Amino acid sequence: MLKENSETFFNCTCPYEKAKVVIFGAPYDGTMSFRPGARFAPKAMRADSYALETYSPYQDKDLIHFPVFDSGDVELPFGNPAAVLSIIARRTAAIIAENKLPLLIGGEHLVTLGALQAAYAHYPELCLVHIDAHADLRDSYLGEKLSHATVVRRAWDILGDGRIWQLGIRSGDREEFIWAMRHTNLQKFDFSGLDTVFRQLQGKPLYLTLDLDVLDPGYLPGTGTPEAGGVSFTDLLEVLIKIGALNIVACDIVELCPPCDMSGASTSLALKVLRELILAFAIK
Amino acid sequence: MLKENSETFFNCTCPYEKAKVVIFGAPYDGTMSFRPGARFAPKAMRADSYALETYSPYQDKDLIHFPVFDSGDVELPFGNPAAVLSIIARRTAAIIAENKLPLLIGGEHLVTLGALQAAYAHYPELCLVHIDAHADLRDSYLGEKLSHATVVRRAWDILGDGRIWQLGIRSGDREEFIWAMRHTNLQKFDFSGLDTVFRQLQGKPLYLTLDLDVLDPGYLPGTGTPEAGGVSFTDLLEVLIKIGALNIVACDIVELCPPCDMSGASTSLALKVLRELILAFAIK
Amino acid sequence: MLKENSETFFNCTCPYEKAKVVIFGAPYDGTMSFRPGARFAPKAMRADSYALETYSPYQDKDLIHFPVFDSGDVELPFGNPAAVLSIIARRTAAIIAENKLPLLIGGEHLVTLGALQAAYAHYPELCLVHIDAHADLRDSYLGEKLSHATVVRRAWDILGDGRIWQLGIRSGDREEFIWAMRHTNLQKFDFSGLDTVFRQLQGKPLYLTLDLDVLDPGYLPGTGTPEAGGVSFTDLLEVLIKIGALNIVACDIVELCPPCDMSGASTSLALKVLRELILAFAIK
Amino acid sequence: MLKENSETFFNCTCPYEKAKVVIFGAPYDGTMSFRPGARFAPKAMRADSYALETYSPYQDKDLIHFPVFDSGDVELPFGNPAAVLSIIARRTAAIIAENKLPLLIGGEHLVTLGALQAAYAHYPELCLVHIDAHADLRDSYLGEKLSHATVVRRAWDILGDGRIWQLGIRSGDREEFIWAMRHTNLQKFDFSGLDTVFRQLQGKPLYLTLDLDVLDPGYLPGTGTPEAGGVSFTDLLEVLIKIGALNIVACDIVELCPPCDMSGASTSLALKVLRELILAFAIK
Amino acid sequence: MLKENSETFFNCTCPYEKAKVVIFGAPYDGTMSFRPGARFAPKAMRADSYALETYSPYQDKDLIHFPVFDSGDVELPFGNPAAVLSIIARRTAAIIAENKLPLLIGGEHLVTLGALQAAYAHYPELCLVHIDAHADLRDSYLGEKLSHATVVRRAWDILGDGRIWQLGIRSGDREEFIWAMRHTNLQKFDFSGLDTVFRQLQGKPLYLTLDLDVLDPGYLPGTGTPEAGGVSFTDLLEVLIKIGALNIVACDIVELCPPCDMSGASTSLALKVLRELILAFAIK
Amino acid sequence: MLKENSETFFNCTCPYEKAKVVIFGAPYDGTMSFRPGARFAPKAMRADSYALETYSPYQDKDLIHFPVFDSGDVELPFGNPAAVLSIIARRTAAIIAENKLPLLIGGEHLVTLGALQAAYAHYPELCLVHIDAHADLRDSYLGEKLSHATVVRRAWDILGDGRIWQLGIRSGDREEFIWAMRHTNLQKFDFSGLDTVFRQLQGKPLYLTLDLDVLDPGYLPGTGTPEAGGVSFTDLLEVLIKIGALNIVACDIVELCPPCDMSGASTSLALKVLRELILAFAIK
Repeated sequence: MLKENSETFFNCTCPYEKAKVVIFGAPYDGTMSFRPGARFAPKAMRADSYALETYSPYQDKDLIHFPVFDSGDVELPFGNPAAVLSIIARRTAAIIAENKLPLLIGGEHLVTLGALQAAYAHYPELCLVHIDAHADLRDSYLGEKLSHATVVRRAWDILGDGRIWQLGIRSGDREEFIWAMRHTNLQKFDFSGLDTVFRQLQGKPLYLTLDLDVLDPGYLPGTGTPEAGGVSFTDLLEVLIKIGALNIVACDIVELCPPCDMSGASTSLALKVLRELILAFAIK
Repeated sequence: MLKENSETFFNCTCPYEKAKVVIFGAPYDGTMSFRPGARFAPKAMRADSYALETYSPYQDKDLIHFPVFDSGDVELPFGNPAAVLSIIARRTAAIIAENKLPLLIGGEHLVTLGALQAAYAHYPELCLVHIDAHADLRDSYLGEKLSHATVVRRAWDILGDGRIWQLGIRSGDREEFIWAMRHTNLQKFDFSGLDTVFRQLQGKPLYLTLDLDVLDPGYLPGTGTPEAGGVSFTDLLEVLIKIGALNIVACDIVELCPPCDMSGASTSLALKVLRELILAFAIK
Repeated sequence: MLKENSETFFNCTCPYEKAKVVIFGAPYDGTMSFRPGARFAPKAMRADSYALETYSPYQDKDLIHFPVFDSGDVELPFGNPAAVLSIIARRTAAIIAENKLPLLIGGEHLVTLGALQAAYAHYPELCLVHIDAHADLRDSYLGEKLSHATVVRRAWDILGDGRIWQLGIRSGDREEFIWAMRHTNLQKFDFSGLDTVFRQLQGKPLYLTLDLDVLDPGYLPGTGTPEAGGVSFTDLLEVLIKIGALNIVACDIVELCPPCDMSGASTSLALKVLRELILAFAIK
Repeated sequence: MLKENSETFFNCTCPYEKAKVVIFGAPYDGTMSFRPGARFAPKAMRADSYALETYSPYQDKDLIHFPVFDSGDVELPFGNPAAVLSIIARRTAAIIAENKLPLLIGGEHLVTLGALQAAYAHYPELCLVHIDAHADLRDSYLGEKLSHATVVRRAWDILGDGRIWQLGIRSGDREEFIWAMRHTNLQKFDFSGLDTVFRQLQGKPLYLTLDLDVLDPGYLPGTGTPEAGGVSFTDLLEVLIKIGALNIVACDIVELCPPCDMSGASTSLALKVLRELILAFAIK
Repeated sequence: MLKENSETFFNCTCPYEKAKVVIFGAPYDGTMSFRPGARFAPKAMRADSYALETYSPYQDKDLIHFPVFDSGDVELPFGNPAAVLSIIARRTAAIIAENKLPLLIGGEHLVTLGALQAAYAHYPELCLVHIDAHADLRDSYLGEKLSHATVVRRAWDILGDGRIWQLGIRSGDREEFIWAMRHTNLQKFDFSGLDTVFRQLQGKPLYLTLDLDVLDPGYLPGTGTPEAGGVSFTDLLEVLIKIGALNIVACDIVELCPPCDMSGASTSLALKVLRELILAFAIK
Repeated sequence: MLKENSETFFNCTCPYEKAKVVIFGAPYDGTMSFRPGARFAPKAMRADSYALETYSPYQDKDLIHFPVFDSGDVELPFGNPAAVLSIIARRTAAIIAENKLPLLIGGEHLVTLGALQAAYAHYPELCLVHIDAHADLRDSYLGEKLSHATVVRRAWDILGDGRIWQLGIRSGDREEFIWAMRHTNLQKFDFSGLDTVFRQLQGKPLYLTLDLDVLDPGYLPGTGTPEAGGVSFTDLLEVLIKIGALNIVACDIVELCPPCDMSGASTSLALKVLRELILAFAIK
């Protein structure tokens, strides 16, 4: 007697061997300074994904034609961010080693660092595309080096100058914006005039990290640090479809906080972003 | 001792005999596969309607000058969709028989079918204007012919090819979109370029069904199957005012799910849509 | 790469072949006349079960020593109660056929009927132990024979007089209480003086149906039709441990409505009831 | 075409002329210093009352046999407590004038004062039975004489010494408890040993005011000023049935705050209290 | 041992003597006819303000460079609007007397009147800039002169014709819109074409009152009377930065209702509005 | 201009020098494996404490007569439990050094360890009274030594055998209960028969840690790991008043999780516990 139901994203039934994209969840929000709850995102997204069509009228493609495997969540020790990151790195490395594309579902933004470390180990030319409301460029936060507020600075420790593109940023302290001028390519507020950016990214091995709070809280109230003044869903969709056509080698979607939006609309939106992102890869 | 308060939409006090529009509620959500709760919409809308002005600055008209009667809710047997539809059809037919315009408040989208049957019986030339996020064109859903996901397909069983206009559709499986190309007039995503459509609809007896989830969940999180990427309230308002000026013979507003939006903002929006729709009829 | 996490009750990893108890979920609430949401119970219980110890200090037993298999949820067509019941009956029959104990997680109370039919087919001497706030003895409800409010009456259609014990009942119309006097053994309000009952049940093949709303809403606000004046958790626990030691051949736990209790405390309580019930069987 | 549904408590259809009990709502919470929301109680109770049986297994009586009329809510000017009270007094007086029993549904506790004034005008021997967690004996609150926190003190201004019985009180400042020793009959914490009280109340014309927060918040979280340590529902039920058999000439149930308990369990409990109270009167 | 934490907006530590802007809260919502809860706005905003950056990338300025003092909340007697207004007026007058700019955080819109009276006493040429969804021009509401729905009419009693600019108005009864044509400068729906307005306001001593419900409920569901069809956050931001550069002598932000938006996104938005408004003043 | 309002528990205005009890908050929940949110407890309790009377009718004492200072919250680095504990230890040590009684408000249970370390440094004979639903005796949890699930085991590392009393425990794995038999004095389920315990504790310097989840979730749904089957509020109250009369040298109240109970009733209960505990100390 097999189980009739399965708790996987979009009921994916592709066997691991055939998968091109491997999803895994990192239910961690241990450094969140404001509202926790991002830990519940992978579970909430799996649970609600049966309610979303697998077909995208935007891209006229269907998830059922694209081999995706859901490898479940990693189990993470709350209270030990370094251990958390190394568990995430290990899972990511294993996926990359088999020539598959890891797609990490956070959790808070710090989880990105584990996956990025693993991706960088395999792709020394790796660049980072960072879509977010927050610059996340602090060197430390409340004395800690590992924090959701320092994650892109830690990424820079690995990648160095000129390898990070930051899009949609509308929050940070003054020092972060000044620091970014010398070390990253930072686009404030929205996605206007990204053509040059897309040309620059062409051909490079890219890690894409999408902090969903780049969206206006009107579209996504379900996030731990909502920032008024964000982009619309359709703006994000357009950018994701373009970026997805580039050479993405690893990626993540982070900072959905389901308990902050009991309506379920935020979780539903995150799932649509996930669907469209996978389908954007699908032309490769 | 008369009751000072009355639970009617906008405190309507028009006697039934003089009414041109007759509202009734169909508190049914028995085939919803995801989040139920649309059954509470008629009650929630009545309860909150006293907080909305009867005057519209958009159309410079006032509900108090237009004869509307609220005939309450029909009592519906959960678990028997066929019986539900025939009860709705009976109420609709009674209203049409007295030359009044029935305005049904759902409930889930399946309730439309009952009212449409009754309207078609009286208006054999009936056409359907379907504003929605979802195509609702499946032939069956989980083996059932009567479902919120099949309602427009069932409408087509009645009306046939070329009699259905679908506006704002952004969700469905691939087959539904392909099927629509041959059998309905389907406009994807938004309301751009509807001038031709309005010309086509001119003079025809129209059933208007408005599934509120055509709105972006940013505007209306209170719905059972939220779909990111929808239209704005002002876009919808503009279209409704235009359509309201056509030959509407019956109509409904469905899929408000009050428990999905505890803020009450979704219910309030639905009431404003209701007010503006009635006022749009009022020029006749 | 195996999945590290698994969505099963209490992380049960017992293979089906070795299992003595087989759990399955019936996410259906299609005839609920008041607050729906019981459909979410199986998912919510699975998701939260990792937070509960497998060890019971009450019975000094541990779930990890008892072979339980979680066979997932059946997929049910909302809008067709008869089809729903036959799907549930089929799953139940399959489990009984392999000499295992089916443990159904609702959903609303109507789901009991499907499992009871299957159990009766195998155990013609079957008796029903019905723990509930509501008598559920109406012959029809809003004209329908199949309803959460008629389920025990339908069970009587199958089992006949003197085969049904009803415990904790504190709600119903007058006719139901009068009818019960002639046809069932009904204990009002609480569990006082059940010793005779336990003696009567000794040795008989029993179907146990537990409607969680027998608990006072102070303990379990997360149910669709809360009835003030119920029993306490410890009272229920004591009775369940005694009943579990009898000859239970099939059972269910129904009417948890997770969206009615956002604190998660009701889901957590339901899980503890489930744990203790399985452990009560474990002495056999 | 009559309305099939009607928004009245328990679907009461008794005509006003034949009614012995007349319910009305006073949706006012304008002096609440902590959590407002009691204004929504009458509407929420009406809306949910269809989900409660009219039959009481506790008293073996049925509401359908007892003539109750729901006269709706009075419209009250927020911001003007004196005007609020005089509107309530007028409605109460009209009901009493026709020899019917007014049953006021608050709203906050201040509303009691309006009804009490009207009852006192008709029954100069009036005594007050006050069931509550709070003493409500302050002479003024934040400088105001009219407040939910002063209402029983204002009642004393009318009735004088020895005419007020306070039951279940577990909150107040030290002065209130000292003052009560000289002016009222105050029973702390619970309902133990009330036999003497019941003897004292025999035959007197009684105004019964029930502040639902006398219940432990475990039973009734939906109230504006929850006070841990209250009585149980069954304790309250027993006392109400006894008091209901006395000579009640007017009464109220106040301080249900529906938005404080989204589960609806508190509203449901309040309705059961209302049902049992009316049925307790019914022996007369 | 000093307290390490302090409950002030944005952790402001400027001493009162050096402050140019003095914030205070007026936690009052006693005349709200629909959903109360604005009373909780000052506390909720203080509590959440630590999560917002003090630096604005929009204006490239930082709150830490601008002297702001948080003087806490005034204590207000619910149930007595006249007393409420005079307490607010007193606090406002004290701040103005020391040549500081009072910034009042409501509370419902009526609180504006107290601050406006004090400002007018000091600035007889005072003009009012009123940004709101509602006209608030009724002469009385449910018989009361002092109400959230009459506040701008009361302001006109003080200021007279031609001294009031109303922006973004999209709700009112017909009489209010007609009255406005003769007595105020009212711009309907949005902020298009305000250049003339800004020229008119140049140099005048201005009281700015911002009712946050001018925003679309998609951006701000957390308000007591949500009105679909409002402006976007970025539209409002642009206008506030322009108005802030004018001669504001007193101002307020009202009608945030935190319990209406449990996600916290509305409170967060209100804080960003507050930050940007203060920074807009900072050029002076 | 002084601030009229102050965010302290119960508006305490006692200067630090005169205080006997010093409260501080530790808003940390970084190792919670299930529902986070205990971080919000100190703020929520302060914010709501104005709604509670300072007078206790249970003990006939008043907080205003007892010198309590609220020293605010410590700022804690999420993601580094060791640093968190040392900050808490430092604050506790400073309070003890001045001969005052530290009263720590969590946060999750791990915070106890910091305060206990500081108390033990000053009182080498220190014993621990641990009131909780959970044994918290694991040696490590998910590989971590510092966790809410290991805190009493860590306390034992410091105090050793026979110095720990555990009351009300009803959850743990089998090993914890076995381990407790040899190393601690563990009372299961409730507080029956504690007289011997009170005699044993007489005269010893005691650290009292109260995990509020010892209460049944019916009384306190607002906690991160609710466990059905707990004690009642009045049972707890009785025990606290007895223990408070012993030689308490430091204490804490932990695991209130305000976002898990939006009604505010749990926060209100926690405040009453805090009030009664302080007043129980007051006889010394």
